[in-house]
Formats: sequence, C-alpha cells, structure tokens
Amino acid sequence: MASNTWQDKIHEIIYEADTPAGKLFDLALIASIILSVIAIMLDSIPSINAVHGTLLYKIEWAFTIAFTIEYILRIVCIKRPKSYIFSFLGIIDLLSILPTYLGLLITGQGHYLAIVRLLRVLRIFRILKLAQYLKEASILVTALHASKRKIFVFFCTVIVLVTILGSIMYIVESPTNPVFKSIPHSIYWAIVTITTVGYGDMAPITNLGRFIASIVMLLGYAIIAVPSGIVTSELTQAVKNQFTNTKSCPNCAHDSHEHDAIHCKVCGHKL
Amino acid sequence: MASNTWQDKIHEIIYEADTPAGKLFDLALIASIILSVIAIMLDSIPSINAVHGTLLYKIEWAFTIAFTIEYILRIVCIKRPKSYIFSFLGIIDLLSILPTYLGLLITGQGHYLAIVRLLRVLRIFRILKLAQYLKEASILVTALHASKRKIFVFFCTVIVLVTILGSIMYIVESPTNPVFKSIPHSIYWAIVTITTVGYGDMAPITNLGRFIASIVMLLGYAIIAVPSGIVTSELTQAVKNQFTNTKSCPNCAHDSHEHDAIHCKVCGHKL
Amino acid sequence: MASNTWQDKIHEIIYEADTPAGKLFDLALIASIILSVIAIMLDSIPSINAVHGTLLYKIEWAFTIAFTIEYILRIVCIKRPKSYIFSFLGIIDLLSILPTYLGLLITGQGHYLAIVRLLRVLRIFRILKLAQYLKEASILVTALHASKRKIFVFFCTVIVLVTILGSIMYIVESPTNPVFKSIPHSIYWAIVTITTVGYGDMAPITNLGRFIASIVMLLGYAIIAVPSGIVTSELTQAVKNQFTNTKSCPNCAHDSHEHDAIHCKVCGHKL
Amino acid sequence: MASNTWQDKIHEIIYEADTPAGKLFDLALIASIILSVIAIMLDSIPSINAVHGTLLYKIEWAFTIAFTIEYILRIVCIKRPKSYIFSFLGIIDLLSILPTYLGLLITGQGHYLAIVRLLRVLRIFRILKLAQYLKEASILVTALHASKRKIFVFFCTVIVLVTILGSIMYIVESPTNPVFKSIPHSIYWAIVTITTVGYGDMAPITNLGRFIASIVMLLGYAIIAVPSGIVTSELTQAVKNQFTNTKSCPNCAHDSHEHDAIHCKVCGHKL
Repeated sequence: MASNTWQDKIHEIIYEADTPAGKLFDLALIASIILSVIAIMLDSIPSINAVHGTLLYKIEWAFTIAFTIEYILRIVCIKRPKSYIFSFLGIIDLLSILPTYLGLLITGQGHYLAIVRLLRVLRIFRILKLAQYLKEASILVTALHASKRKIFVFFCTVIVLVTILGSIMYIVESPTNPVFKSIPHSIYWAIVTITTVGYGDMAPITNLGRFIASIVMLLGYAIIAVPSGIVTSELTQAVKNQFTNTKSCPNCAHDSHEHDAIHCKVCGHKL
Repeated sequence: MASNTWQDKIHEIIYEADTPAGKLFDLALIASIILSVIAIMLDSIPSINAVHGTLLYKIEWAFTIAFTIEYILRIVCIKRPKSYIFSFLGIIDLLSILPTYLGLLITGQGHYLAIVRLLRVLRIFRILKLAQYLKEASILVTALHASKRKIFVFFCTVIVLVTILGSIMYIVESPTNPVFKSIPHSIYWAIVTITTVGYGDMAPITNLGRFIASIVMLLGYAIIAVPSGIVTSELTQAVKNQFTNTKSCPNCAHDSHEHDAIHCKVCGHKL
Repeated sequence: MASNTWQDKIHEIIYEADTPAGKLFDLALIASIILSVIAIMLDSIPSINAVHGTLLYKIEWAFTIAFTIEYILRIVCIKRPKSYIFSFLGIIDLLSILPTYLGLLITGQGHYLAIVRLLRVLRIFRILKLAQYLKEASILVTALHASKRKIFVFFCTVIVLVTILGSIMYIVESPTNPVFKSIPHSIYWAIVTITTVGYGDMAPITNLGRFIASIVMLLGYAIIAVPSGIVTSELTQAVKNQFTNTKSCPNCAHDSHEHDAIHCKVCGHKL
Repeated sequence: MASNTWQDKIHEIIYEADTPAGKLFDLALIASIILSVIAIMLDSIPSINAVHGTLLYKIEWAFTIAFTIEYILRIVCIKRPKSYIFSFLGIIDLLSILPTYLGLLITGQGHYLAIVRLLRVLRIFRILKLAQYLKEASILVTALHASKRKIFVFFCTVIVLVTILGSIMYIVESPTNPVFKSIPHSIYWAIVTITTVGYGDMAPITNLGRFIASIVMLLGYAIIAVPSGIVTSELTQAVKNQFTNTKSCPNCAHDSHEHDAIHCKVCGHKL
C-alpha cells in the first residue's frame, strides 16, 4: 500500500516472514533466544556461576533489554495490541522479561526469585514458529490436530488402567515392600512401567507382584501400538489429501485421479 | 410412550445419555467416582490419614450411601434386573459398596478388610462409559476388536520366546549371578528386557549373559513393531470403513459399497 | 483311502489337525508341554525343589516317557521318517527327552547335566504350531517374511551405529568411569540405550558422555520408527492382498473391485 | 572399452560391484574391516591386552598396511582423485590408517594416541555400502530421505519440550534432590525420561516432581508415535512408488502413471 507508516514497516519486519528483512529478523530472534537460554543454563551450573556469575548477569541484562524493546515494538506497531498481549506467545514474552526487573525491586534475591527468573526459558517456544517455513510441519500439525480426540480417549483409558493397576499393586506389595507406601506412589510406579520407562527406583519384590508387573509390561507393550496407529493413519490421510484431486471424469464418472492428470486414467476422456 | 411410570423416567435418566437429564446424571456420576477415588488415594497416604482420617471416613460413608441409592435405583427401574446385576459393571457396582458395610459387621478392622475396601477403585471403569459420547472411541474399539486374534497370536509368541530366553539366561547367569535364582525369576527378567522397561533390579553380569541380553533387546526392538503394525493396519481399515456404507442401491437395496463406487456392485444400477 | 493301516490312523491323529481326534491330540500335547515346562520351572526354585523334589522327579519321568512314546510313534507312522527326524521340531523333540535318560547313565548329577535337562523347555516351541488354527497367524508370518530383508538391512545399520557409538563412549567415559571398561562393554551400553531398555547398571557420568548419551537416545527414538514402519507397510499390504480381486471390467477395464463384486463399480457392466 | 589400462581394471575391481572380481573384492574388504574392528575391541579388554598384546599389535600393522595399499590404489586408479579423497568415506579411510603411523613418530604412547587409534573403528561405516546389493535398502533410504524434514521438525519440538520440562523439574526438584543439580542435568533427565530409556540414575523424589514426571512419561508415550507415523507413511508411499513408473505412454511418452492406469493421464492414449 501507498501510505506506509513506520509502524507498518516494523510490523512487516516483526510479524511477517516473507520479506528478506522479516526472515533476517526471525533468524536473529531465534539466535538471541537460543543464546539467552544457553546463558540461563550455564548460570544454573554452580561451578560456572561462581567464576562467570558477573558476566552472565550482564548478558542477562543485555537480553532482557533487547527483548523489552522487541516487546514494546510488537505492541506499538500492531493495530489491535490486545490480540498480541493476551495471546499465548504474548504472555510468554512478558513473563520472560518481567523477572529481571523484579529482581531490582526485591533486593532480598531469595530462592523464589531465582526460580521465577527461569520463566525466561519459556521463550524457547518461539522456536516452533520457525516451523512456518516448512510445509512438513503443517502436515504434522494437521495430523495431530485430527487425532486429538482419539488421543484423548486413549489417555483416559491409560489413566483408568493405571489407577486400577496401581491400586492392585498397592494391595499386593505394600505389606512387604516399603517403596509402595501409598496408592499415588503405586500409580506412579504403574505409569513408569506401562510407558516402559522403568527407572528401577520402585520395583516389585514379591512373586505375585512380579507376576502382575509382567502383565502390566506386556499390556504396555500392546498399548503403545495404539497412539502409533492413530497418528500413522491420520498422517497417511493428511499426506494423501495433499495430492487429492476433486476432478471426476465426465465420461465414466471415475474420481481419485492424480493431481496432475488431464485425461481419465480409466476411459481416456478429457477431464 | 404415553404411560411413563416413574421407573421409566428414572430409567431414562440413569441408563440413557441422549436427554439433558441423562447427560447431567452421567457427568455427576463420573465426578462422584473421581472424587471418591481421590478420597481413597488420600486415605492411603499415612501422613494424610493420620490428620484427616475421620473426615475421609465420613466422605467414604457419604459416597457409599449415594452409590447404594444409585445401585438400588438401577435395579428397581430396569425391566430385567438380572441383566444389570450380573453384568460386568453391575458386579463392580456391588463390589464397590459392599466393603464399607462389611466394615461395620467385622469390628476387628484388620488389614484384609482395608484391602477389600480398595475394591471401590474398580468403579473408575465407569469413566470409560463416557466414551460413548465420542465416535472416535468406537473406531478405536472396532480396530482393537478386529485385531484381537492377531494380538493373541503375538502374545503367545512373546510368551514362548520369553520362556526360552529366560531359561537360557538362567543356565548362563545363575552360577555367578544370585539375582537369576530360578527360571520364573529369569523369565521375569526376559519380560522386563524384551518390553524395553529395563528396571535394572536384575541385570546380567557375565560376558555371555550380556551378549545374549543384547540379542534379546534387539529382538524386543523389532518385535515391538508387530503390535504397532497390527493396530495401524486395522485402524486404517476402520477409518476407511467409516466412509463406506452410506450409499444404498436404489434398485436392489444392497449397501456396503466402496467409497468411490458409482454403480451397484451387485445389480449394476446407478447409485 | 481304503487300505487304512494302523500307521495311517496314527499319522492322521498325530500329524493332521482337521479331524476331531487330531485336534484332541494337539490340545492334549500342548497341555502336556505347558505342564512339563511348569514342572521344570518349579523344580528350579530352591525352596520348592527342597520340599517337592521327589514328586517333581517322578513328574519329569512321566512326561519323558509320554514324550518318548510320542516320538517313536511319530517316526513309525510316517513314510519318510528322515523328513521328521532332521526337521527343526524333530531335533527339539529328541533334545527334550534325551537328557532325562542321560541322567541315569551319568550318576554324578553335576551342574552341567542339570543345565542340559533344561533343553526340555525348548519343546514349548510346539505351541506355536497351534497358530495353524488361526488364519491371522499366517498373515503375520507373511508380513514378517516379506519384510525380512528390510529388517536385516535395519539390523546391520543398528550394529554399525552401536559399534561406533560404543567406541566413542569408551573414549569419552573410560578415563573417569570404571563401568565403561572396554569397547565390548561400551557397545553393550549403546545397545541398552538405543533400544530404550536403560537398565542403569551402566550410565555416563561425565558431561560430554551425558551429552553424547542424549544424542544416542534421541537417535534410538527415531530409529525405533523404522521397524515399525517396515512391518506396518508389509502388514497393510498382506491384509489388502487377502481381499484382492483380479477381475477387470470387460467394458471399461477398471480393476481393483471388491472381492464380492458382480458389476463394475465405475460403469456398471457385468464382470 | 578397448583401451583398458591397468588403472581401469583396478577401478573396475575396487569401485564397481557388478563383476565377479568386484563382488569378491567387496566381500574381502568387509571381512577385513570386521576382523580389524574385532581386533581393536579385543585389544581394549585389559585381560586380553595383557596376554595377546603383541599379537594384536602385529595384526594391527597387517591391517594398516593392507588398508594403506587399498587407499593408494583407490587414489591412483580414479580419474579425479579429489572426488574420492574429500568424500565422506575417503576421509574415514585416511583417518583409519593415519594413527598407526603416528604411533611410530610419537614414542610417548600416551593416552591420547590410544584414543586416536580408535578412529579405525569408523571404517565399519563401509559395511553399509553392502546395502547396494539389496534393493530393500534403497527403499528404506528413500523413505528416510523423504521424511528427513518432518523428522527435523519433530526433533526441534522434542528439544524445545525437553528444555522447558528440564527447567521446570530443576525448579521443582533442585531444592531437595541433589541429582537435579543444574538445568543441563535436568534436561538430560528429561531426555532419558521422554525417550522411555529410564536409567534410574536420576529420578524425582518429591511428590510434585513425580507428578510432573508422570506427565512427561505419558507425553513421551504419545510423542513416540509421531516418528513412527512419519516413517510408516513415507515407507508405504515408497513401496507404492516401486510399482509405478513402469508404463510409459506409447503416444506422448509420459511415464509415472498410477499402477492401475489404463489410459495416459496426459494425452488419454491407451497404455
């Protein structure tokens, strides 16, 4: 459009990804997020914090100021700022810059503040926005979206199973095995086992308990096939729909032609 | 129908799900079951039981009386009560209320009674009845039902494999490794390994044992693909069948045509 | 046939499964095998062996004599005995009865003889013969047979990967971590990790080791998808081939009709 | 061609696989690589190294000289040597022979040299070249190649998830559980858990930590279905494509028709 204000130009850079400047901004943003998350990680290692603590504190401030500028620009250059401020990514953007400023006000520097500052890690969710550059991502999202109700049914079944199996194991193991000390602990064990994680911090020791555990494992073995089946069938469908052709032959009425077909593959009539 | 007795009205609320009252009853029932199961779980944690034991005992009685009223109404308002009393859910409903009353008669309050009272958790199975609201659940059930014979063959094979692999590991490990103390224990190890759970409470220590264990793991890696393949192929079939059966031949009334059929496959008439 | 000798009659009972007597024999055989394997298992548990050792020894002899009679009958009633004697199941049948007789000759009753007697467990392979009653089993076997070359390629890749990853971990971990004491041990660790079993008896302790381990796990996560994909695509093919119809429409030449089609689904012409 | 120089003959043997001599060379090469890798493995076991160290040192030299001759021949007989020298396999071939010669120059025989010599294991990658004999391998490679962008998206999502889940667990567990000592350690735990490996060297001990861990496991359970679905749908596509492309239109010479096409989809001519 003709009347491009500076807000429009910034909007194009920040929110859109189809101009060179927009792509560059996206890449710079992702790089900053990754670097800031690495800085947070290093700061959490006691030995590194002891030596480079001051440097990491300066880096934290540099990223916080940069992200604050970005946050303000995002609000300023959009027409309806509320649609951004109250969106999932908008709230995360705010949560990731607030704690550093809070640290100035509350001088105590307690443990809880240190924890709140970790909220900055949430910014890493923005990386997934990169996915818009790959059409493969949208197929995956479509397939998962289409299978979300089936996966919900699956999870309900798993939770019911795990509650009952955990209770049974509590009955069987608790008299002799101190690690099965309550039903919630036994349900935790059932989840660890049915998902085939198997930490080994909780394991049955009675013969009957081991027998039931074997059944739980074999059950988990069969159950893991269900989400796999759900996602595969939806994904196959999503891939097929990409190439779907709605053309129907005017002569023999055969449909399901390839997407680049000009003539009917059955009777040869022009489509 | 015209002559709606009070039994018919209660039947409609309790057994059917397509009226607003029926839906409300179902939701209230699921909520009560979840709350009662949470109460049972909390009661099993020693620290909570010590403080809130009396309150949880009262809650237990409240739910028991409510479920008893529901149980009596279910019997009263149905035409053939036996079809409910001896059904899977009917027996579970009875088992979940009986133990609390038994606790009054047997004053000893022994460990066995405490265990029997956990039968109330079984009621959580009723949650799966919610699945009737989602057509996705019926597709999953259809697919699993269709694949049940294949899964049975798969489990027989796994049990035969696990018996032989467990016996081999018993021969190899038992002279030097005390945890492989009998064949059933070694079979338990084989199940833990082939299902990729891997607690680590039993692990081979001899070189030959570790070599055999490696083969068992790689075998388990390939075997896990089989139930996945079974469920996926059945689920793909079940999803495809969803889109069949809608057309019925106007000439011969034959249904179950393929989704892309234009002419009836029996009489050749245009659909 | 007219001249049914007693060999023919026994052959029919032992080798065939489509007569009532044949089915009964099969079921009795499977029951005996399962019972004899349970007896072997119980005998391996020290506490049970101490109390019921003599009884289990008698049961062992009873099953050995029964299986010996069966073995002789199988040889006598078949026309070409060599085809049975040198078959996979024939060798297992012999191996499962020999050790008990060997126990009489070698009076020392050493540990090695005890081990050899466990060969009787191999008989459990016969249970898989039951699969002939289920057509589902043959579909599974067809699918696995068709995918055996792909699975071979997959396993070669896994073995190459595991050798290299194990060697890298040996380089990284061995100076500080005593459990990675040689390359074969490190390869064992790589197999335990890439198959997601994860016993925990061997785990990296250095930071670099844990970083590499993370990559191995994520790799294993993606790799497990390959056998799943192989078996699923073959199984879908095997299921589809069951219903394949070779009829091609004489009018429009469309093929791939349903197996019970009489008219072409595209043009309605009689097939 | 007529003017076959000795370089051409060697080129045919070393680089090509469709002559008997070429196949024989490939098999001999694979056998040498496997034997040399086994020698390296045995050398890493302290007890074997102590007894057979001198023999294994001689074997190492024999293989090094043989592989050096092969390396020189590969360079000599090819027209553009750079295309081999700087290829992936060319660099591995050089890396696998250099360390043994370096051992002569640096007499110190330090730990770092021993590590560098393990580079010879990398040669095992050549085994995968065998895959060219199996057309199944090319289908697998095609399927994985086609799904590589989807798998990249999948891995980005897993890494983002694991970073956030690891940070949350660090916040929850670090005050009471010494094993969650930094964010990178907690991310390692999240990877161990979400891939269902579950070593058990790091496990949550707080109630909230175990609750979050349960969610991570169930998430991992559902997520594992995604790569499985990706590979399966691509593999099904790759297998289907095998049966396409054989028909070429006699009129317009267009190929890549569907497997059930009767008429050319471009010009309508009968195939």
